[in-house]
Amino acid sequence: MATLLHLDSALWPEQNSASRAVTAAFRQAWEAQHPDGTVIYRDLNADPVPHLDTLTASAAFSDPADHTPEQAAAFAEQLKLIEELESADAVLIGAPMYNFTIPSTLKAWIDQVILVGRTALVEESAVKGTPVYIVASRGGSYAPGTPREPLEYVQNYLEGVLTEMMGVKVDFIVPELTLARSNPAMAELIPLADASKAKALEDAASKGKEAALKAVVLPVREVH
Amino acid sequence: MATLLHLDSALWPEQNSASRAVTAAFRQAWEAQHPDGTVIYRDLNADPVPHLDTLTASAAFSDPADHTPEQAAAFAEQLKLIEELESADAVLIGAPMYNFTIPSTLKAWIDQVILVGRTALVEESAVKGTPVYIVASRGGSYAPGTPREPLEYVQNYLEGVLTEMMGVKVDFIVPELTLARSNPAMAELIPLADASKAKALEDAASKGKEAALKAVVLPVREVH
Repeated sequence: MATLLHLDSALWPEQNSASRAVTAAFRQAWEAQHPDGTVIYRDLNADPVPHLDTLTASAAFSDPADHTPEQAAAFAEQLKLIEELESADAVLIGAPMYNFTIPSTLKAWIDQVILVGRTALVEESAVKGTPVYIVASRGGSYAPGTPREPLEYVQNYLEGVLTEMMGVKVDFIVPELTLARSNPAMAELIPLADASKAKALEDAASKGKEAALKAVVLPVREVH
Repeated sequence: MATLLHLDSALWPEQNSASRAVTAAFRQAWEAQHPDGTVIYRDLNADPVPHLDTLTASAAFSDPADHTPEQAAAFAEQLKLIEELESADAVLIGAPMYNFTIPSTLKAWIDQVILVGRTALVEESAVKGTPVYIVASRGGSYAPGTPREPLEYVQNYLEGVLTEMMGVKVDFIVPELTLARSNPAMAELIPLADASKAKALEDAASKGKEAALKAVVLPVREVH
């Protein structure tokens, strides 16, 4: 059965969040292809996962047989997040830009799921090659050639870390200028913002379908 | 009286943490000049500040007179962090690279202290021009010209966000190759790692003194 792991991390609910609106459109397109599929959903804003802390890191770097009860609990929590990622045929991440990079809650998730020897820096792993679709929404424009391009630390960073550490395949959907309708100084950018939003929703629908069709659904075989 | 705001965010204690060892050397040099000075210390790993969440953001974007008790509490917590920053003549940040960028705990602090209209995007503010010394430690080398330079999202990012949003003056101390002694594959890099550490400790001592001497200490005036 096909599985989608869907993460959101925006501060605001869907009606005020470009990334949530676009991940919802992607998910809807995916679910249309897999009405009986599994969607694992995490709202990292409402229910943050723990920071990678001394306890979790000490557990990850030691033999589970030697874990204290506290280390065992922290490691179990980390493994749960890793197993969700490993079970997914596709991953969908809402990654709004806050202060030029990803939310702290999303960084905490990344630090939890990157486990060297299991998901990261290994020849083979259950996550290698997994398609990861990222909705990188942002208030202004940081597109190549714009003055703010050097301040873009969402796409660059996520592509770098996810590809280099886990060998997943990253693809982006980028609704931008999302503040145009609420910031009077950006009023003349409203048409561009609306076009960007329309394009993002369209991309979400087509990529959601694409991700769904890529999912390897093994047929149930009869045993003879 | 001179005030230093000192933040650490490394997972490991000082004997295993390059960033903590170097911030300690900086602080010692600063304290030698200001034996009666104030050091505000936060260990963001041991005692993380809250993520910027919906409640805090909704408080920051609304009139304090209209705050619910929950918003008032969240805003008070944010203001406390901002006031610490505003009170500092210099800021010292231990910012180890984890998965190519800063720890999630440090991003949470940044999201809390950047408040548009007070610390950020204003002509004048109490933080503008404050010297911020960052110990950007990292396990490998990401120096200009090295193969991993494109994966460096600590210095680039911190310089971008802190300068652009708050107008502070950022300076770096960079102990690198810190994994050389624990990773057998990096054994031949040990001399370079040791040189980098020695240089970082030296830089910390001189920059700590420099920061201390820059602090504007107003003489107590007699009232005539």
